[in-house]
Amino acid sequence: MKKVTYYHAGCPVCVEAESKVVDALDKSRFDVQVVHLGTDNTRIEEAEAQGIKSVPALVIDGIALHINYGASIEALK
Amino acid sequence: MKKVTYYHAGCPVCVEAESKVVDALDKSRFDVQVVHLGTDNTRIEEAEAQGIKSVPALVIDGIALHINYGASIEALK
Repeated sequence: MKKVTYYHAGCPVCVEAESKVVDALDKSRFDVQVVHLGTDNTRIEEAEAQGIKSVPALVIDGIALHINYGASIEALK
Repeated sequence: MKKVTYYHAGCPVCVEAESKVVDALDKSRFDVQVVHLGTDNTRIEEAEAQGIKSVPALVIDGIALHINYGASIEALK
């Protein structure tokens, strides 16, 4: 199976929004792993080596994709 | 089925990278549509109404997620 790794740092608004991406992935074809760099900072080096500049980000089959949600004002009330 | 819409504007480097995301989605659970706003600009208003500020972006189940790849130097050679 191809690998997808989702790196995040636990921002609560973002966790909710971006978990949509993880949920939508095809688990029958992709081995999906979620890494919380805030609590598991031993993996920061690995993330950087894959081209990650900010979190949340997905690495799909070796390609780093940075995701920006931008918390909605509503969610912050 | 829930809906996923992928909006882009045809940047060739990005098309290759971000098509990874579309490929990785679970088509058995999500109705996935790809919209090229460069050639179909009648849908820009619809994209904006869903919270999209830049492309490429995914709207998953009503949540807008902006994706930044950042073309690699290698790809531009």
